[in-house]
Amino acid sequence: MSKKYVYFFGGGKAEGNTTMKNILGGKGANLAEMTNIGIPVPPGFTISAEMCQVYMEEGEIPQEVENQIDDNLKKLEDLMDMGFGDSEKPLLVSVRSGAAQSMPGMMDTVLNLGLNERTIEGLIKSTGNERFVWDGYRRFINMFGDVVMGIEHEKYEEIFQKKKDEIGAKLDTDLNTEDMKDLCMRYKKLYEEETGEAFPTDPRLQLEKSITAVFKSWNNPRAVTYREINSITGLIGTAVNVQVMVFGNMGTSSGTGVAFTRNPATGENKFYGEYLLNAQGEDVVAGIRTPSPIQDLKNEMPGIYDQLINIKEKLEQHYKDVQDLEFTVQEGILYILQTRNGKRTGPAAVKIAVDMAEEGLINKETAIMRVEPGQLDQLLHPMFDPTVEKNVIIKGLPASPGAASGKVVFSAEDAEDWASRNEKVILVRVETSPEDIGGMNVSQGILTARGGMTSHAAVVARGMGKCCVAGAGDINVNYNNKLFSVNNNVINEGDYISLDGSTGEVMLGKVPTIEPQLTGSFAKLMQWADETKRLKVKTNADNPKDSRVARDFGAQGIGLCRTEHMFFDGDRIKAVREMILSKEEEGRKKALNKLLPMQKEDFKGIFKVMDGLPVIIRLLDPPLHEFLPKDEKDINQVAQELGVSSEHLKELIESMHEFNPMLGFRGCRLGVQYPEITEMQAKAILEATVESKNESIKAIPQIEVPLIGNVKEFTLNAEIVDRVGGELGLKRGEDYWVGTMIEVPRAAITADEIAKEVDFMSFGTNDLTQMGCGFSRDDAGKFLKKYVEVGIYSRDPFQAIDQAGVGKLMKICVDNARSVKPNIEIGICGEHGGEPSSVEFCHKIGLNDVSCSPYRVPIARLAAAQAVIKEKRN
Amino acid sequence: MSKKYVYFFGGGKAEGNTTMKNILGGKGANLAEMTNIGIPVPPGFTISAEMCQVYMEEGEIPQEVENQIDDNLKKLEDLMDMGFGDSEKPLLVSVRSGAAQSMPGMMDTVLNLGLNERTIEGLIKSTGNERFVWDGYRRFINMFGDVVMGIEHEKYEEIFQKKKDEIGAKLDTDLNTEDMKDLCMRYKKLYEEETGEAFPTDPRLQLEKSITAVFKSWNNPRAVTYREINSITGLIGTAVNVQVMVFGNMGTSSGTGVAFTRNPATGENKFYGEYLLNAQGEDVVAGIRTPSPIQDLKNEMPGIYDQLINIKEKLEQHYKDVQDLEFTVQEGILYILQTRNGKRTGPAAVKIAVDMAEEGLINKETAIMRVEPGQLDQLLHPMFDPTVEKNVIIKGLPASPGAASGKVVFSAEDAEDWASRNEKVILVRVETSPEDIGGMNVSQGILTARGGMTSHAAVVARGMGKCCVAGAGDINVNYNNKLFSVNNNVINEGDYISLDGSTGEVMLGKVPTIEPQLTGSFAKLMQWADETKRLKVKTNADNPKDSRVARDFGAQGIGLCRTEHMFFDGDRIKAVREMILSKEEEGRKKALNKLLPMQKEDFKGIFKVMDGLPVIIRLLDPPLHEFLPKDEKDINQVAQELGVSSEHLKELIESMHEFNPMLGFRGCRLGVQYPEITEMQAKAILEATVESKNESIKAIPQIEVPLIGNVKEFTLNAEIVDRVGGELGLKRGEDYWVGTMIEVPRAAITADEIAKEVDFMSFGTNDLTQMGCGFSRDDAGKFLKKYVEVGIYSRDPFQAIDQAGVGKLMKICVDNARSVKPNIEIGICGEHGGEPSSVEFCHKIGLNDVSCSPYRVPIARLAAAQAVIKEKRN
Repeated sequence: MSKKYVYFFGGGKAEGNTTMKNILGGKGANLAEMTNIGIPVPPGFTISAEMCQVYMEEGEIPQEVENQIDDNLKKLEDLMDMGFGDSEKPLLVSVRSGAAQSMPGMMDTVLNLGLNERTIEGLIKSTGNERFVWDGYRRFINMFGDVVMGIEHEKYEEIFQKKKDEIGAKLDTDLNTEDMKDLCMRYKKLYEEETGEAFPTDPRLQLEKSITAVFKSWNNPRAVTYREINSITGLIGTAVNVQVMVFGNMGTSSGTGVAFTRNPATGENKFYGEYLLNAQGEDVVAGIRTPSPIQDLKNEMPGIYDQLINIKEKLEQHYKDVQDLEFTVQEGILYILQTRNGKRTGPAAVKIAVDMAEEGLINKETAIMRVEPGQLDQLLHPMFDPTVEKNVIIKGLPASPGAASGKVVFSAEDAEDWASRNEKVILVRVETSPEDIGGMNVSQGILTARGGMTSHAAVVARGMGKCCVAGAGDINVNYNNKLFSVNNNVINEGDYISLDGSTGEVMLGKVPTIEPQLTGSFAKLMQWADETKRLKVKTNADNPKDSRVARDFGAQGIGLCRTEHMFFDGDRIKAVREMILSKEEEGRKKALNKLLPMQKEDFKGIFKVMDGLPVIIRLLDPPLHEFLPKDEKDINQVAQELGVSSEHLKELIESMHEFNPMLGFRGCRLGVQYPEITEMQAKAILEATVESKNESIKAIPQIEVPLIGNVKEFTLNAEIVDRVGGELGLKRGEDYWVGTMIEVPRAAITADEIAKEVDFMSFGTNDLTQMGCGFSRDDAGKFLKKYVEVGIYSRDPFQAIDQAGVGKLMKICVDNARSVKPNIEIGICGEHGGEPSSVEFCHKIGLNDVSCSPYRVPIARLAAAQAVIKEKRN
Repeated sequence: MSKKYVYFFGGGKAEGNTTMKNILGGKGANLAEMTNIGIPVPPGFTISAEMCQVYMEEGEIPQEVENQIDDNLKKLEDLMDMGFGDSEKPLLVSVRSGAAQSMPGMMDTVLNLGLNERTIEGLIKSTGNERFVWDGYRRFINMFGDVVMGIEHEKYEEIFQKKKDEIGAKLDTDLNTEDMKDLCMRYKKLYEEETGEAFPTDPRLQLEKSITAVFKSWNNPRAVTYREINSITGLIGTAVNVQVMVFGNMGTSSGTGVAFTRNPATGENKFYGEYLLNAQGEDVVAGIRTPSPIQDLKNEMPGIYDQLINIKEKLEQHYKDVQDLEFTVQEGILYILQTRNGKRTGPAAVKIAVDMAEEGLINKETAIMRVEPGQLDQLLHPMFDPTVEKNVIIKGLPASPGAASGKVVFSAEDAEDWASRNEKVILVRVETSPEDIGGMNVSQGILTARGGMTSHAAVVARGMGKCCVAGAGDINVNYNNKLFSVNNNVINEGDYISLDGSTGEVMLGKVPTIEPQLTGSFAKLMQWADETKRLKVKTNADNPKDSRVARDFGAQGIGLCRTEHMFFDGDRIKAVREMILSKEEEGRKKALNKLLPMQKEDFKGIFKVMDGLPVIIRLLDPPLHEFLPKDEKDINQVAQELGVSSEHLKELIESMHEFNPMLGFRGCRLGVQYPEITEMQAKAILEATVESKNESIKAIPQIEVPLIGNVKEFTLNAEIVDRVGGELGLKRGEDYWVGTMIEVPRAAITADEIAKEVDFMSFGTNDLTQMGCGFSRDDAGKFLKKYVEVGIYSRDPFQAIDQAGVGKLMKICVDNARSVKPNIEIGICGEHGGEPSSVEFCHKIGLNDVSCSPYRVPIARLAAAQAVIKEKRN
């Protein structure tokens, strides 16, 4: 066998490079690359992933490859002037797995490999720290047994705890050298009991066992599941990296540190990091000693500092991104242990991307790709001061981003009451309903015990740009006593809590916030995104305020203006209820006539803000019973207001009860049964259009019929709109447009018939997901978590479009519709319209626009631009 | 213009024939055909439907065609030796519309056209009845004004009533000749007022106006809507038939009658009918005089009788079907006014079809096509004695056929209570729930106020073969006072009512029933159907009794065995509740172990009956909360039984509440969350299989995972089944099969992925319709009626598959599935499986089998055979 399976790196030269990730893995290719560009990396070698494949088939490492390993070990010994198993100058190595893609399911790392009772001597001499060395040996025995041989880590912990109990030690540091030696003995005994063989003292045998353990770990259940869930296919296996150990704790000419080439919190272009002298890497992380800022190194080790600055420049120039690097100085010699792209906050990501593009390091497209769209969230809401300590009492779903603090109240009325006294409140409910909207609107944030990311609370809150933590299932809300309890905390009405809508955290007390800064970089990035994207980005808004916010955030129109929220204010709800109570058309028309002028003003307000941009207005959608009171007290009050008996009202409410309201009497069905509702809304919209034009405002109304399943449902409603339009002298297709939501599977399936009749289509993917997958978003919380856990869906389909199912239905719809009307405008207006992977999917299947809540508009703009670039790069 | 638009018939010869329906219409073609085969039809002529098209375009009848009409009138006068407008021998005609398909939306009939004050003289002479003639004139003026000119009929009625009031007449017959003359004056005055012109006295003008009125009626809104709703397209217009009037009331040598060539109630091959001497057709129908049986004519008019017998034979030989004919004898001359295929009862249809085939009149295929599958219903259930008068108080939905009488009870417990005292009861509920099953089972029939054709009550009742009238919305059920009221009737507990499940009629009292006779003809027809059909017909059954019934009715296996019904009996429900109450897997397993032996016995019983035939068993499907008690009293009792507090049980029930249970935690989701449920059921089924085989019974179990939307939901459950199978030494694909329901749209869309994993598929079209169309069957009652009324759906999609929508989804599924597994068995097991048009559709899209309730098996067999024949004929 002459094939090469082992690749050396060290001495300024490597046999591999960054393009060889498929066989060397990400880590191995990167170590080789750094070596090649002159970065001082501790030398070592990588055993190729192809060997993993061979091992899987043959069950052993062929002798020829063992020889290659031996050759590389020899090369390493020569380079380092050390010996593997040598008692004077012992060569110690680390062994790490590393596939072409990061794979948390596999074996991780074994450190200090090569230690045994002989080599310990040499190490004690060079470090001068006997306890450290024995502690290191103890850790090696533990790590080897755990990681390589699969002995449960807790068993070592038990032994360790027992030892501490025996000698009355409280802290680990209370154990001395002799205690460590004793522990080594006990650990080895455990090893023998568990494996039936002695702990290997021969470093070469330690190495062989570690290498085969890495290969075996490729197919352990965790790794297989991880690949399944993340759809990782096409990899041949994992590589193994064997690398010389270096130590930063060999005296005052040694040290260790971590650094970022730029500030990862702000994005500022300034070297950023910290270090400790005479210490190991874990000491920096563990926080036992306080590290010094990287700039101090300039005084303490000027040569090393200069070297670091050079390396930092080199790495950024080479990788063209912020680098997060780890370094160790061993007796005056600098080693870079790792470099990787640095994680950063949203604001930093934006600044770094724009700066680098302007520095000429990357182009604009790359800058656009550098920012995760979701990260922009952090730029769009106030956020908690990250320097302040928080007392988190529970974590719910991060339903609507933002940071909110306020006094707890338990009903919408209380919220409005308290707010009218200028109190800042957090509304806590088991769940919210449309009647709570007033209370939600005046609250700083909303916390619910039930409901998912697309529950009423979550959807409304996101629409309002208001912070919401939903589905915090472990809180017990007691409305009677006005308190909630969770994990032994009892929070009473009036107590302060804080909500982090981006993490789902609920904290005791009032956590201070800081205002976000919309820097010039952000504006620039958005401009570049707009120059790149093809999709139009619209917004879901149903009042002038939200419309204004969205337009300021770059929305190109309103993709969904829900009209039902307009029906809840003050006198309106009374008229709505009057309408529902009427048995005859005449009574309904009378009540609707009261609503007409109010609705008209709503639309005029929105048209004014959106002057010159299209506004899709959806006709009344929810089941009528949502407008009726629910509890005894409200029923009595409403009955009195409307002048009917409570009995009568109760009977009506009972008669309107639905088993599955989601699949009930709602959407366009209302207009089929009660054409006067559609007529009133058409009048309000189109009269507002005429009046706006008279005020030199360009209104572009697009009337949308919801919940169509059958083209005839559309035509029946559209005929009413067109009749009203005709009476006002307006022309469909010039002055107004009539289209439909696609949210019923049957509509997608028969989109060819529907397309002939409509001017535009807009996917309502919430409902399409509910009906397509057959689960109600209000109930799916009970099993959807498990579904994601076991990999039935890789993500909650209410958060990201289920592309294989619901997405396929969308594709069928688009193809059907375009087959009869090639240029029909098709958009999406569900919550998915602001979710990056869904935006990308919408781009791919050729939609014309996406619509999302105002605060997600910039996210959608960026995602839309990235979709174009990804498509181009494919 | 030389084109022929007018076709004469008369004198034993006609210019048209039965193949010319497209231009002569059904009626015209038939009149021509009868004339040609020597049947004495009153002569006349037909103006072709092509003329209708011309008239629509040009707005008038061209002069050339007027000339053709004149020529034909002349021919008619010559043939009859009468004159149009002649005062001596006046020719009177009828004018009728008639398109290629029957169209109730169009103009109907004008009789006595040609009457005016001149021709009246001649008619008085020939009839010798002055009052009759003036009454006829009065009727003509009314009919012409109403039918031709669109004057409201009520206006004539008002005048008529006023006249009666003036002279103090009670009955119409109290008016004498002078009164009739006076009415003619007044009617003409009304005509003038309404139309602004004088009533036409010129017969030719009367004719012209009538002809153009017929043409105009083709496009009146009623006719247009009728065509839309019934999807009638491709017709060019209506023809007009002008035919000589004959009178049966010209003395004792005249008469009139109706007859069937065979008995339409029993099918017996015996001339059947009745007649009146010196009478008009309407007198026979109106029941003022009692007609004589046709056989008496032999004595009264022997020549005419012989002629009739000859004609009857000729017509049946010619049309090869039972004829329903109308005849008039005018002064000793026999005229056949009409012949058409005779309507007949189900038993008659079967007997006639089989008899005719055996007589050699028709072939077997035609015999199969002659029986409407739905008619077989009448052969499968007891039926009310058709001779008894019924007091119908309301009509609900004909949810499950049958005839039932019993005493009214209002709860399942009362039903069981009364039944245990040998009382026959009808269970009346607002709606039923699974807990009512015991009570439903002991009742003669079920009546509900809410719910449609596929409501719980309807589905369960059909499964039980039990009579049910559902959704009788106008009844008010008062549980407290144990009564219901409807249309001023109050029915108390214990009162007798009767239900007709085939018509939806609810009757007061105990209407006597007769037992159906399953004659030899029926068995023969079914045998012919089986020889013809390609689809297998299976049954939905979940106990040995139903399975036996179905097998006797020819079922070729069980297409759906629901297991949830098995969970409600006695001790079982307790174990089920124990399982639901358990928080830990162990507790659930313990409870499930109690169910295991009972379930196993269930399956063994079914396997025994279905020995050698496949049995599809569906795993547990409904939401678990269906098994929990609902009202306070039951909750307390169950809590006591299970040894938990009522509070705890209530909380549990509350926590399991679902907003949309239809889209909630049910179906395969149960098995994903609680694999132990699937495991128990798999054990019960497969252990039953092994034990059956040991008893030499060939069990063919096909385990079905319900509510799959994603292939992984299937594989997770199938793995459990296969593990259990493996433990019992059984092989999938040899000893048992695992498949899935297709009822979630996503499953249909991704059927290619699913087909790879499953052994068979079965459409659950109830749920597929609910999710595909987006309406819950329990709630859709509120708007679906309107939907069918306005033509959004031509039929209730829960009754007949919505082929354009849900059917398209099914087609996509079949194509997807067969693209990866060409021979995969695909069936249907929803309620649609027994509905003829749906069975035909299933045949068309290539399904392998349909499954329906036992009592619908023969219907499905016949429909499946007809599907083959229709396909062949296309």
